[in-house]
Amino acid sequence: MPQKNYVSGLKRFVTSRGLAGRRKVAMPPGYLEYTGDKTEQPVRIEVVNFSEHSFEVKEASSIEECLQLEDRKNPTWVRVIGLHDVEKLSRLMDEHEIHPLIQEDVLNQRHRPKVETWEDSIVVIQKLIDPPASKEQPFHVENITCLLMEDLLITFQETDHQVFNPVLKRLKSGKGRIRKSGCDYLLWALLDAVTDHYFLALDQLEEDVSRLDERLQADITAVNPQEIYGIKREITLLNRMLRPSREVVAKLDKSESKLMTDTVTPFMRDLYDHTIHVIETTEHLRDLSSSLRDFYLSSVSNRMNEIMKVLTCFATIFLPLSFLAGVYGMNFDDMPELHWKWAYPMLWGAFLTTFLGMLWYFRRKKWI
Amino acid sequence: MPQKNYVSGLKRFVTSRGLAGRRKVAMPPGYLEYTGDKTEQPVRIEVVNFSEHSFEVKEASSIEECLQLEDRKNPTWVRVIGLHDVEKLSRLMDEHEIHPLIQEDVLNQRHRPKVETWEDSIVVIQKLIDPPASKEQPFHVENITCLLMEDLLITFQETDHQVFNPVLKRLKSGKGRIRKSGCDYLLWALLDAVTDHYFLALDQLEEDVSRLDERLQADITAVNPQEIYGIKREITLLNRMLRPSREVVAKLDKSESKLMTDTVTPFMRDLYDHTIHVIETTEHLRDLSSSLRDFYLSSVSNRMNEIMKVLTCFATIFLPLSFLAGVYGMNFDDMPELHWKWAYPMLWGAFLTTFLGMLWYFRRKKWI
Amino acid sequence: MPQKNYVSGLKRFVTSRGLAGRRKVAMPPGYLEYTGDKTEQPVRIEVVNFSEHSFEVKEASSIEECLQLEDRKNPTWVRVIGLHDVEKLSRLMDEHEIHPLIQEDVLNQRHRPKVETWEDSIVVIQKLIDPPASKEQPFHVENITCLLMEDLLITFQETDHQVFNPVLKRLKSGKGRIRKSGCDYLLWALLDAVTDHYFLALDQLEEDVSRLDERLQADITAVNPQEIYGIKREITLLNRMLRPSREVVAKLDKSESKLMTDTVTPFMRDLYDHTIHVIETTEHLRDLSSSLRDFYLSSVSNRMNEIMKVLTCFATIFLPLSFLAGVYGMNFDDMPELHWKWAYPMLWGAFLTTFLGMLWYFRRKKWI
Amino acid sequence: MPQKNYVSGLKRFVTSRGLAGRRKVAMPPGYLEYTGDKTEQPVRIEVVNFSEHSFEVKEASSIEECLQLEDRKNPTWVRVIGLHDVEKLSRLMDEHEIHPLIQEDVLNQRHRPKVETWEDSIVVIQKLIDPPASKEQPFHVENITCLLMEDLLITFQETDHQVFNPVLKRLKSGKGRIRKSGCDYLLWALLDAVTDHYFLALDQLEEDVSRLDERLQADITAVNPQEIYGIKREITLLNRMLRPSREVVAKLDKSESKLMTDTVTPFMRDLYDHTIHVIETTEHLRDLSSSLRDFYLSSVSNRMNEIMKVLTCFATIFLPLSFLAGVYGMNFDDMPELHWKWAYPMLWGAFLTTFLGMLWYFRRKKWI
Amino acid sequence: MPQKNYVSGLKRFVTSRGLAGRRKVAMPPGYLEYTGDKTEQPVRIEVVNFSEHSFEVKEASSIEECLQLEDRKNPTWVRVIGLHDVEKLSRLMDEHEIHPLIQEDVLNQRHRPKVETWEDSIVVIQKLIDPPASKEQPFHVENITCLLMEDLLITFQETDHQVFNPVLKRLKSGKGRIRKSGCDYLLWALLDAVTDHYFLALDQLEEDVSRLDERLQADITAVNPQEIYGIKREITLLNRMLRPSREVVAKLDKSESKLMTDTVTPFMRDLYDHTIHVIETTEHLRDLSSSLRDFYLSSVSNRMNEIMKVLTCFATIFLPLSFLAGVYGMNFDDMPELHWKWAYPMLWGAFLTTFLGMLWYFRRKKWI
Ligand SMILES: [Mg+2]
Ligand SMILES: [Mg+2]
Ligand SMILES: [Mg+2]
Ligand SMILES: [Mg+2]
Ligand SMILES: [Mg+2]
Ligand SMILES: [Mg+2]
Ligand SMILES: [Mg+2]
Ligand SMILES: [Mg+2]
Ligand SMILES: [Mg+2]
Ligand SMILES: [Mg+2]
Ligand SMILES: [Mg+2]
Ligand SMILES: [Mg+2]
Ligand SMILES: [Mg+2]
Ligand SMILES: [Mg+2]
Ligand SMILES: [Mg+2]
Ligand SMILES: [Mg+2]
Ligand SMILES: [Mg+2]
Ligand SMILES: [Mg+2]
Ligand SMILES: [Mg+2]
Ligand SMILES: [Mg+2]
Ligand SMILES: [Mg+2]
Ligand SMILES: [Mg+2]
Ligand SMILES: [Mg+2]
Ligand SMILES: [Mg+2]
Ligand SMILES: [Mg+2]
Ligand SMILES: [Mg+2]
Ligand SMILES: [Mg+2]
Ligand SMILES: [Mg+2]
Ligand SMILES: [Mg+2]
Ligand SMILES: [Mg+2]
Ligand SMILES: [Mg+2]
Repeated sequence: MPQKNYVSGLKRFVTSRGLAGRRKVAMPPGYLEYTGDKTEQPVRIEVVNFSEHSFEVKEASSIEECLQLEDRKNPTWVRVIGLHDVEKLSRLMDEHEIHPLIQEDVLNQRHRPKVETWEDSIVVIQKLIDPPASKEQPFHVENITCLLMEDLLITFQETDHQVFNPVLKRLKSGKGRIRKSGCDYLLWALLDAVTDHYFLALDQLEEDVSRLDERLQADITAVNPQEIYGIKREITLLNRMLRPSREVVAKLDKSESKLMTDTVTPFMRDLYDHTIHVIETTEHLRDLSSSLRDFYLSSVSNRMNEIMKVLTCFATIFLPLSFLAGVYGMNFDDMPELHWKWAYPMLWGAFLTTFLGMLWYFRRKKWI
Repeated sequence: MPQKNYVSGLKRFVTSRGLAGRRKVAMPPGYLEYTGDKTEQPVRIEVVNFSEHSFEVKEASSIEECLQLEDRKNPTWVRVIGLHDVEKLSRLMDEHEIHPLIQEDVLNQRHRPKVETWEDSIVVIQKLIDPPASKEQPFHVENITCLLMEDLLITFQETDHQVFNPVLKRLKSGKGRIRKSGCDYLLWALLDAVTDHYFLALDQLEEDVSRLDERLQADITAVNPQEIYGIKREITLLNRMLRPSREVVAKLDKSESKLMTDTVTPFMRDLYDHTIHVIETTEHLRDLSSSLRDFYLSSVSNRMNEIMKVLTCFATIFLPLSFLAGVYGMNFDDMPELHWKWAYPMLWGAFLTTFLGMLWYFRRKKWI
Repeated sequence: MPQKNYVSGLKRFVTSRGLAGRRKVAMPPGYLEYTGDKTEQPVRIEVVNFSEHSFEVKEASSIEECLQLEDRKNPTWVRVIGLHDVEKLSRLMDEHEIHPLIQEDVLNQRHRPKVETWEDSIVVIQKLIDPPASKEQPFHVENITCLLMEDLLITFQETDHQVFNPVLKRLKSGKGRIRKSGCDYLLWALLDAVTDHYFLALDQLEEDVSRLDERLQADITAVNPQEIYGIKREITLLNRMLRPSREVVAKLDKSESKLMTDTVTPFMRDLYDHTIHVIETTEHLRDLSSSLRDFYLSSVSNRMNEIMKVLTCFATIFLPLSFLAGVYGMNFDDMPELHWKWAYPMLWGAFLTTFLGMLWYFRRKKWI
Repeated sequence: MPQKNYVSGLKRFVTSRGLAGRRKVAMPPGYLEYTGDKTEQPVRIEVVNFSEHSFEVKEASSIEECLQLEDRKNPTWVRVIGLHDVEKLSRLMDEHEIHPLIQEDVLNQRHRPKVETWEDSIVVIQKLIDPPASKEQPFHVENITCLLMEDLLITFQETDHQVFNPVLKRLKSGKGRIRKSGCDYLLWALLDAVTDHYFLALDQLEEDVSRLDERLQADITAVNPQEIYGIKREITLLNRMLRPSREVVAKLDKSESKLMTDTVTPFMRDLYDHTIHVIETTEHLRDLSSSLRDFYLSSVSNRMNEIMKVLTCFATIFLPLSFLAGVYGMNFDDMPELHWKWAYPMLWGAFLTTFLGMLWYFRRKKWI
Repeated sequence: MPQKNYVSGLKRFVTSRGLAGRRKVAMPPGYLEYTGDKTEQPVRIEVVNFSEHSFEVKEASSIEECLQLEDRKNPTWVRVIGLHDVEKLSRLMDEHEIHPLIQEDVLNQRHRPKVETWEDSIVVIQKLIDPPASKEQPFHVENITCLLMEDLLITFQETDHQVFNPVLKRLKSGKGRIRKSGCDYLLWALLDAVTDHYFLALDQLEEDVSRLDERLQADITAVNPQEIYGIKREITLLNRMLRPSREVVAKLDKSESKLMTDTVTPFMRDLYDHTIHVIETTEHLRDLSSSLRDFYLSSVSNRMNEIMKVLTCFATIFLPLSFLAGVYGMNFDDMPELHWKWAYPMLWGAFLTTFLGMLWYFRRKKWI
């Protein structure tokens, strides 16, 4: 039912946490609060150590184990899956000397995409967006936070979404440059995977727009305006979510931090191209959805004209005829026409003449 | 009643003092004029002295007492609550060598948010916005002015709003870094509290938009257009009020004044993130309210089509039928059909045929 | 009559000289042409000499007298009132070595606000805008030109508007810093007086918008759309007139000319604040007037729905009933119902049933 | 007829050559093609030599004669009138060592305004726009190209438009600074003449808008929407044509070429003021024409309401009355009312009561 | 049929590959995937060696042959026609040490126009756009990629479009500067040919808009709104496609790479002029198509008024007349008028009076 699509128009991107995100007021910096849904599953921490000739994935059951597993000499990727265990995350970040303000940002799933360069670390927050299996379900939206440090990359994700699996597979296979490069290249590979998912969302929306367009052409009355406004909102919301990413990737591209080596620069530049392409496509889709709306409104007006033309034709033909019939239904004593021999057939002639005259008039006006 | 909401649409943010704020024309600099409502309560001055190991709040009954209470060696926060005693405020500011133009700004509750850097002081004006308890009441809007000087922070507020109480509590408790840091950190903590209140206003408006959306879906006729335009105005007004804050916080973030130490930089950067998020959310809400309006207008057009279809169906069915009935109500002497045996039932057959034919025609046109 | 307001909508700011201002084509630089209305009164020149301890206003009857009256050692303010005596003005400006192009600008009352910095002088053109006493009259709009030179300020105004009188009074009284400061501070004081008048115009327009809003709420049909579009135009025109002022005051604020001393900087910064506030308020009012227009258009559509609903209810109820009555007014020989005993009351029953059924149907559709 | 105005709406600025201008594809640089209308008249070349004490205009019949006539020591102005003799123009420009790309630009009458600074020359392209004598004719639009070289200025114009005659007259008269200055000042004088013509076009359009406004007020039905959209287009087209001029004049104002001496700077700055004023006025007129369109659309809606109110009043009054009359025209055997004595007058009473009741109802609804 | 135009509105620029372009997710850099249509024809490689005195075109059947044919001392242009043989292209690019990311871009036909400067190469991607032979066919859109290296230019095109043939012809003829210049000049010549094709597309669209305008004037009902929205979309799409070219050409114009010699600078500047002109023309066309849409909508409203006026005139004339006729068709025993002698003619007089009165009323209201 179109009613349903409309509901999703607002809700397919905005979860129950809302746009702004409710938080406690005026708390000290580093006051950590998880505002998402608690789950039963524990927060998982995976430690991935790799070098040109080695590769190892281990799951750490505690913070202490995690710290022990981290290889100090080779690149290490610490994957944190789940954000609901605030104490555990806090301890992990304290151990790695993460500033309390960044700890807040990691947990704030409403935070806008950003890059922050600290002396010994780079913080990257990016939105992961994934289209749903069916049109009734919401888009998957979560924040991915990456902390790049000397030979160490920590990533935080709220759910166990499969976005990073292909990268893990490439690491494991040892092909290509990924094992030979450092954590900065790994950061690129992860952000690239995130960006590639935007294309999936765009494809979905493009198909929706295209199908709506075809339905509007086939039969305008089969389309509920809620569908048009619903898709327009989704596209506007997606555009607003992605717009800050342009600046994020531009900053990474131009970063002068020692943590970003020169070999990664062309890769970040490529990521920038993709990001611009994604944002331009959302603008493009917005134009198309505006065009569908304008066409819909214009067609509604035209339909109204059609309806009024039918009404006017009938009324202007039958009102005079009925008047004439009414006249000869009057009961005056002295109405000579009533007694004429050919009066009745002549009147029918008058009826027909009026009828055909009106038809000719409307035909000339191109109403029928 | 919706009528009421609409009134508040214009008035929930703009108080009786208006947008521009009426003031005397061409007065000399430092001509002070309080344009708000006079209250009976005296202007209160609280002096808060603190250091890592001490904390003391005292209320000063006079300017002299205030000056005496100020601790020259440790950070001091002078809180001025109430702006209606112009003489008292003027003396206080004169004693602290505040430029007459700044004295004017402190009293001008219509002043836009700004930062001004002087040699020995930084002036910050920010809007405090708080949503009301009920939809019929106006938002609480007042200017907060902060004067940061060497080991001294003076804040001015028009009412005794509780916005700074959590900060005072943190100061008192002595936990965290607030007692160890100086007046610049205190300034951040206060501005952070002000910014956190914006989220409360956003939450309120987001909920209003969301509820209006649901009502529009459920039954378009239950919504008065005044409600839609009212909420759209509120959001536009909020956006315009908050927009200058972006520049305010950016300037603080990049300030090179010696009064702003390096340790505060990351905190100001965090405040900047929140401010951008707030402004982006107002833009977001503006888009949503525009979308509701467009949907409403589109639905009104559709409803008109529905109404006209009903009228046209009835008129085009019954006008020809009535004409036929009128014909056989005529009183001509010589109407042979009147005397046929099956004429009357046949006419009923013609009535029914016409009726069903028209129904079929409208069904094919998808009008019914 | 609303008709009148509409006329003023276009004409309250634009005088008979038009937007662009008609001038002779391709004349040599310095070709002076007064395009305003000639008046009988002569051009008046007042010479104001002042220092910390002295103050003197004299009216010069000729250019020679004016030059003699100018005090070379102390600040002098030469006020020129009236622009219609081109020869006199030309001689005055030639004597002070004003560039012919600037002489043109002084006379061009359509010139946009600007600042121009020459080696020995600063030229400031600003619009003076004053609301009229009644809604039928046009706003007072004229250009004020200020030429700041070494210890000399020449101001040109077309009419003897009272805008500078409070400043003259302050000069005379000798209080405050105005007598102790130089011509640059005097320039600020004059521009500040001009800017304060913008607030009067804003107050007027804000009140108009607010009153229109209340009338729209009370009874939409009492408002002529001309009033809404008229006020919208006035606001747009005011915004366009004031917009260049932002750059004017920003340039003065950042001027590095030796004619602008450091002590004036904070005053110019304050003027900048006011100018931004003025421009933002016009944008604000523009939003409000757009909102009124949107609400008006939306209400007109709704009213059309209301009208059509009334028509449709009546027509769909009475068309079938009239048809039935027509049927039993036919004159067929053999209409058995006509002779049934209870036929007539039963038909009335059918009439009532149809009537009530339709009422119930429209009630369910929420039309009545 | 309004129909005619509408045609001109699109065509008054865009000639048969179109917006983009058709040209051969992928030709080598310097491939010259004249795309305008061929005329019988030969291309004329005038050589104007002048110095403080001399002035001479000669027409050159050949390129060789032109080169001989050019005075190497004093400023020379070579005026080329007509662009259709491609060979002749090509030889002239080759002799003066003009780059083939610039030669192309000179002939391309669709080229946008621009300034290009070469080592030994400055190229300026500007649009000449002149309003027509009557509303049915198109605006005169042509490109003026000026090549400024050491002591030489070459200007190209397509037609023998009189735009430069006043400058020639000033040169001849020897008054003012024009004979004492060089080719850079002459360039300014010519561009100033071109810019002054923009004001003529603006005056024309302003008058059109103003007259349309008055007609809309007097009687909305007397205005064809084609007129409103036609004038709106003309203004938009003019704005788009003039917009690049802002950058052109700004570049000249800030030019650091040795060909532009310091004395010309204030003149170029003045030209910049005029150009901005012109562009702002087109924006202003665009706002006004948008406002007229909005008012027109709003009035059309209101008229529809008026029409529907008339229809609804008549229908809702007479449908019930006709129904009642129909009832008592039925032929049932047993209709007791028909035989009552006062039935007929009472029914008339009912008719009148219904009639007046409906009138009162519509009066209360403020429909009549 | 207009229906067809509408389909093309969306599809004339966007091929089946969509806006975003579907690609595999999270692949390693250099993962090459051809997403276009496979063709039977092999990928062709042409090697063009040229110098001032020599010129030679050879087709290479293998990569090895291609490498052998490349002249190391003189400029060489390697033309690759067809992108579907991924292996072959990959080997060619590997041999020339093209970065894997650039290899990806070459194959991505959805890539936006860009310039990338590497140490030893410049990469240029530009859209080739060509209007179709008829209105039912889509525009030809493909990416052209140029790799400029030391004395070598490689170009990639998806189809064997004839865009570069005129350049090849100029190379062959040996006239002009093309054989004397290097690969940077050749790059310009190719990009110039691509840009010249934009003018063909603009001419096509300009003609479409102009013809639509004429048809709208002649008879508004002959135009389907789908045509208006279709052309508006096409123009918006073209604008979005071309907009990135501005930056591309600006970067080439300002390039400081050693591969771009000084002699090419004026040519790139000329290309920039053309690109700006192209983009401005699309904006211009967008304004014109918006204006057509506004005019169409306005005319639809006016037509509705016309229709309603006809209906209202008929209904308000005949409803009262029919009522009167109905009254005298009633069967009351005692209706004295029925027996008056002149009643019937008098009633006809009343009918005529009412009829003429209504006509006069509508004439006064300017409805007829
Ligand atoms: Mg874009
Ligand atoms: Mg956009
Ligand atoms: Mg857009
Ligand atoms: Mg848009
Ligand atoms: Mg658009
Ligand atoms: Mg939009
Ligand atoms: Mg719009
Ligand atoms: Mg934003
Ligand atoms: Mg926005
Ligand atoms: Mg927006
Ligand atoms: Mg929007
Ligand atoms: Mg908006
Ligand atoms: Mg603003
Ligand atoms: Mg604005
Ligand atoms: Mg605005
Ligand atoms: Mg707005
Ligand atoms: Mg606006
Ligand atoms: Mg708008
Ligand atoms: Mg708006
Ligand atoms: Mg402007
Ligand atoms: Mg504008
Ligand atoms: Mg505008
Ligand atoms: Mg506009
Ligand atoms: Mg506007
Ligand atoms: Mg517009
Ligand atoms: Mg609009
Ligand atoms: Mg443009
Ligand atoms: Mg544009
Ligand atoms: Mg545009
Ligand atoms: Mg547009
Ligand atoms: Mg526009």
